[in-house]
Amino acid sequence: MADTASMTELEKMRHSLAHVVAQAVLKLWPDTQITIGPPIDYGCYYDFRFSKPISDADFGAIEKEMRKIINQAQTFEVDELSIKDAIAYWKKEKQPFKVELIQDLEKAGEKKVTHYRNVMKGETTFTDLCRGGHTESTKDIAADGFKIMTLAGAYWRGDEKREQLTRLYVAAFPSKEELKAYLEMLEEAKRRDHRKLGKELDLFTFSELVGPGLPLWTPRGTLLRNLLDEFVWELRKARGYERVTIPHVTKKDLYETSGHWQKFSEDLFKIKTRDDHELAMKPMNCPHHTQIYSSQQRSYKNLPQRYAETTMVYRDEQTGELHGLSRVRSITQDDAHVFCRESQVKEEFLRIWDIIDIFYKATGFGELQVRLSLHDPNAFEKYMGTPALWKQAEDAIRSIAKERNIDFIEQTGEAAFYGPKVDFVAKDSIGREWQVATIQLDINMPERFDLYCINEKNEQERIVMIHAAIMGSLERFLSIFIEHHAGVFPLWVAPTQVAVVPVAGAHEEYAESVAVALKEIGIRASFMDSTESLGKRIREGEKQKIPYVLVMGDKEKEEKSVTVRNIKTKKQVAIPLKEFLQTVQDDVKSRALELSIG
Amino acid sequence: MADTASMTELEKMRHSLAHVVAQAVLKLWPDTQITIGPPIDYGCYYDFRFSKPISDADFGAIEKEMRKIINQAQTFEVDELSIKDAIAYWKKEKQPFKVELIQDLEKAGEKKVTHYRNVMKGETTFTDLCRGGHTESTKDIAADGFKIMTLAGAYWRGDEKREQLTRLYVAAFPSKEELKAYLEMLEEAKRRDHRKLGKELDLFTFSELVGPGLPLWTPRGTLLRNLLDEFVWELRKARGYERVTIPHVTKKDLYETSGHWQKFSEDLFKIKTRDDHELAMKPMNCPHHTQIYSSQQRSYKNLPQRYAETTMVYRDEQTGELHGLSRVRSITQDDAHVFCRESQVKEEFLRIWDIIDIFYKATGFGELQVRLSLHDPNAFEKYMGTPALWKQAEDAIRSIAKERNIDFIEQTGEAAFYGPKVDFVAKDSIGREWQVATIQLDINMPERFDLYCINEKNEQERIVMIHAAIMGSLERFLSIFIEHHAGVFPLWVAPTQVAVVPVAGAHEEYAESVAVALKEIGIRASFMDSTESLGKRIREGEKQKIPYVLVMGDKEKEEKSVTVRNIKTKKQVAIPLKEFLQTVQDDVKSRALELSIG
Repeated sequence: MADTASMTELEKMRHSLAHVVAQAVLKLWPDTQITIGPPIDYGCYYDFRFSKPISDADFGAIEKEMRKIINQAQTFEVDELSIKDAIAYWKKEKQPFKVELIQDLEKAGEKKVTHYRNVMKGETTFTDLCRGGHTESTKDIAADGFKIMTLAGAYWRGDEKREQLTRLYVAAFPSKEELKAYLEMLEEAKRRDHRKLGKELDLFTFSELVGPGLPLWTPRGTLLRNLLDEFVWELRKARGYERVTIPHVTKKDLYETSGHWQKFSEDLFKIKTRDDHELAMKPMNCPHHTQIYSSQQRSYKNLPQRYAETTMVYRDEQTGELHGLSRVRSITQDDAHVFCRESQVKEEFLRIWDIIDIFYKATGFGELQVRLSLHDPNAFEKYMGTPALWKQAEDAIRSIAKERNIDFIEQTGEAAFYGPKVDFVAKDSIGREWQVATIQLDINMPERFDLYCINEKNEQERIVMIHAAIMGSLERFLSIFIEHHAGVFPLWVAPTQVAVVPVAGAHEEYAESVAVALKEIGIRASFMDSTESLGKRIREGEKQKIPYVLVMGDKEKEEKSVTVRNIKTKKQVAIPLKEFLQTVQDDVKSRALELSIG
Repeated sequence: MADTASMTELEKMRHSLAHVVAQAVLKLWPDTQITIGPPIDYGCYYDFRFSKPISDADFGAIEKEMRKIINQAQTFEVDELSIKDAIAYWKKEKQPFKVELIQDLEKAGEKKVTHYRNVMKGETTFTDLCRGGHTESTKDIAADGFKIMTLAGAYWRGDEKREQLTRLYVAAFPSKEELKAYLEMLEEAKRRDHRKLGKELDLFTFSELVGPGLPLWTPRGTLLRNLLDEFVWELRKARGYERVTIPHVTKKDLYETSGHWQKFSEDLFKIKTRDDHELAMKPMNCPHHTQIYSSQQRSYKNLPQRYAETTMVYRDEQTGELHGLSRVRSITQDDAHVFCRESQVKEEFLRIWDIIDIFYKATGFGELQVRLSLHDPNAFEKYMGTPALWKQAEDAIRSIAKERNIDFIEQTGEAAFYGPKVDFVAKDSIGREWQVATIQLDINMPERFDLYCINEKNEQERIVMIHAAIMGSLERFLSIFIEHHAGVFPLWVAPTQVAVVPVAGAHEEYAESVAVALKEIGIRASFMDSTESLGKRIREGEKQKIPYVLVMGDKEKEEKSVTVRNIKTKKQVAIPLKEFLQTVQDDVKSRALELSIG
């Protein structure tokens, strides 16, 4: 039931394929009840009510039937029907879900609906209730460009009190090659899955007793988090930011003032105290930070105030929505809020933009795509403030983006409820796009919390707020970062940077002196004594994805050198110890992305 | 109703004075109902039910009457009465609270009670139901060694559903001089009150909207916290600790296993999720940390595992109990847990003990008093584990304390519910004692969470846990630290270390170059431009308690020198800039307690 007007050609193909799936299913199991089948970002799905369960084993038969339909070059024809006629049709067809859909359309004020029919040699082969968005013929779908991926349970209309349906997910691309590339990407994504790597590299864990969505960070994972976070802090400190500290709870009064109580009530973890007060865990930090700003009267001379804080926020996500680190209940944000005058917005935006550029280059993501997230004027009830305020704020960020001289796109309806945003999108090494950093201009919180400064004329002047997260959620960033690098992190951020491996007992003393020399220059080295075989220890270093494994035998001991094995190239080179120390130190300091030895 | 046996002479004097207060009150207001009057750590109190309210204005009259009684050298005489006779007596005296007390004693199985009478020239002047613990005569109380301090409301038996009484607090000491010293200490404490200094120095703030007991830390306060915490981390890192990160909530299952759910239920902030699960905010970190330990099988070779984490815990304190930073709901702990074999306990205790010694010297507290907190064998139901386990654990820490070769005292009944502790007590600059650091041996959590390592024989071996906090609660430590130093912090930890003050506009350029030179060597300097008068800026530097204020005029500019004003001595000395830079850098690095210039 997608809207034709906004459909791309690819979406039309995928939506057409959904009709083909349904036609094939009805051919194989004629008493199946059909519901809806929209396009999705890699193909389409269709929800069915089968009279007896199907399984993966049936995918081949369905696909075969689908190919037959595609090769028959069935056309898509549209009919307009009155509500009454349409209901009569679907009742006759014993398709109660379609009847319900039409009844709801009638309630919504529709007088007519459209049916799309597949036609072959003048004969109707399949009919669906549909707004359209189709190819001319099934022949326009590549018969070797699709694959049924999986089946899953789904409630009718997403309502857990309604019928449980079976959803068939289908990957669909314009060509066999594109499908192949997609399937290979999935395989690669599986290999890089951060949940798998997180366990293998001992970065984080989950506990049955603590609960889902609440990761526990091990020493290695905490080190990784802290290295990234300290880098963000270094960049911020150099630009005049100061750290602040707030608790994780608040009286509901704070969120009644900010508007979060009304807009985010469902996502809040709520607490009743023994004194019978109502508290909430913070789902974001801005309202708390306003209270530090307003704890004293601020002169324009002391602006901007730039508060940074890496702290956990909590959101009551549904258990079914949780996924590894990508979607958690305890979310660590590297958050910052700038309290400044309107005249300072541009300068502050550009400073943050610089931090984002530097950070994402040093973490191996290169240039980010930029999106301006604007409000939707047709759904103004979702936002705070007035249309005039929004126009002013959106004009401001658009002009900053233009000044930056980069390509950007605008997305209507993607703004925060308190103001427009600049969102940054990273592309990972297997082509997936992830929204990461964000800079948000907020013209509404300062109104709600009555934030002002005393200006040159000794008057109260309303200020503005800028919200800026670099990694955003550290958990989500790390899920992307781990998968992007497949666990082989840039040298500067690898929890263990160098493995020190003596060939045998006789080389342990020299190897230990190398480990000490590394630690003295701040390199995180792990010493592997010679109780296990050399091969096993080298494999262990590789398993742990340690960038450099140093092997030391007689020759190295004698020459004061090291044989360096590079995790990426698997090449080994022998170099003087001194040179190795200097190079790793330089590479860590410059946050080099590549391993320059071996 | 205190127990004679355990009363010191000072307590007997103070308890005797409580009888004197009551006698004086009855003399002035004969229809007053009397209740109880125990000694407290600076004197005594007595709770009364007055027929009409009294106020501070009445203190003089009461004190005068008390002095008269003291000077009359009334003796304390004891009578033993049957329950029946005692009840008859107090009924006749129209003292219903005393009747209730005796009825409760009867219910508890007592057959007789004692009355203490004051007697003068054979005449009884006052009678109280009392277990005793008195001086021979009122003359043994110093007539000029006491002072009625304040009155406060108090519920009968601490039960808010019962009668509201008036409590008179009396300071009482053996001599006029000691009373005077105590009153001066109180004045000094008021001057140093961390709530007052916290506001003046802009360290933290509270917000009506966020709620009581939930401090918000400003940039300066956060800097102070972080400097202290980073020092603790530096000491820990050098001793093999690693940082971990856990969320602030958990399913209740974790606390059912640990025993906190049963023992601490009232103090827990509880959360019902949208999925209808029950979560709790963590009141401590040990149960979470066990889950990181047990996320993989540990070999004895990888022990000890030493996890450190500075993180907030939450306790549902009653609003009336909250006080500045001393008692809050969001408590930041610099917590650590060591998971080790029994054979490693001593070594690990000594390492932590070293950290505590170094830290408290560098923060100006000198040597700490050591207390071994042991379990109370007469209230074993308060603890986990078996008497044998407790004996073993207490013997272990006693022998470690002996090995340390320091004085220590033992306190029965002060152990944690999971094991005995070594508690450290700091004495502040006005003589008050505060329990600060703690090292705890835990033999019970490892049982409950089934924590083990694989030992040399390839068997599962039960491990032990050590809990170690250095500052403990950062909030509480800071309340003590701020008051101990009256806001004039040691140089290394002062949020602003140096104020840079040009005499006039002509000296700003030189002064700015000095500020840059300071920042380059990592000194936190604040530049005060010449828009305000010199005197005002110097006073501002003093108000902010900045250790050094540097004044620069023509002479300094010409000679490349600085005139250094020392906040403690108020002395000024002129020295070459180069020398100043070197000295402050050295003093910060060595964490010198005194300011060595001026």
